[in-house]
Amino acid sequence: MEQVILGIDPGNARCGWGVIREDDGGELKLVACGCVETPKEALPGERLSEVYEGISRVIAEYKPDCMAIEKLFFNRNITSAIAVAEARGVILLAAQQAGLPVSEYTPSEIKETMTGDGRAKKSDIGRMVVLTLGLKKKPTPDDTADAVAIAITHQFWGGLNAVQL
Amino acid sequence: MEQVILGIDPGNARCGWGVIREDDGGELKLVACGCVETPKEALPGERLSEVYEGISRVIAEYKPDCMAIEKLFFNRNITSAIAVAEARGVILLAAQQAGLPVSEYTPSEIKETMTGDGRAKKSDIGRMVVLTLGLKKKPTPDDTADAVAIAITHQFWGGLNAVQL
Repeated sequence: MEQVILGIDPGNARCGWGVIREDDGGELKLVACGCVETPKEALPGERLSEVYEGISRVIAEYKPDCMAIEKLFFNRNITSAIAVAEARGVILLAAQQAGLPVSEYTPSEIKETMTGDGRAKKSDIGRMVVLTLGLKKKPTPDDTADAVAIAITHQFWGGLNAVQL
Repeated sequence: MEQVILGIDPGNARCGWGVIREDDGGELKLVACGCVETPKEALPGERLSEVYEGISRVIAEYKPDCMAIEKLFFNRNITSAIAVAEARGVILLAAQQAGLPVSEYTPSEIKETMTGDGRAKKSDIGRMVVLTLGLKKKPTPDDTADAVAIAITHQFWGGLNAVQL
């Protein structure tokens, strides 16, 4: 069954997004991808509003059937983790308002699915995004490539392994 | 100068809110308070949407001049901290969409301001809310009383000590 998947790498400074389409034969194509970037000097509310508006526009334009988003881990900077979680909040709101089911995947699940190695590097993920979708070059910045990888991960698992949000 | 302050105790299961008015003479009155409660069985996106809609309705109805919100700490359950940060995201979005300036206060700043003791108990906070506003009884649940305390804290500091979000 044809399916359009929106992958999201959440963030309030940069929020990557990637839309892929699986055709009836199971072949994957990149529809569009990009990154919502917000100004450093903006207040948190302004950045969140830009992320919300940006992702809402992507949903309206590409009409995905579902969203896949990276699960948040708190193993690094706590302040940035809070900001990412706040961004996840407005992204999940945008999905809910559009009636999209949401699944989430951990960073290691995404790496494992894309490369077979749960501790793969960013560059390995980027290379597998290019190979899987037959692209001429890797989407940039990394946030965009990661978002596309999350969409591919969701297609691979077909929702079977997903934690439904 | 007369000022209407919306205090928020953020959460995705229960989000407390309290609106207070400072009249020209500096006297404080409770305008309204309540708690957006969301069903346990709801998906995260559904809960976030209810919090967003609920707080947006409060803003539309009481037209506050500013919002004061509790700052998040990660000293307890990480999973619930993520959920609270996601809720903060949609609340900050609602404030931004209404053009409200937002200030944040730590739990210990709120306790210190209300009682003189940064490690005060919930019941002490509730008692000081009742005394400060001349109420007949403490707002319930605790999330509501805490939200009112956050609004009072903001009025006390007059934005001087606030971390502007």
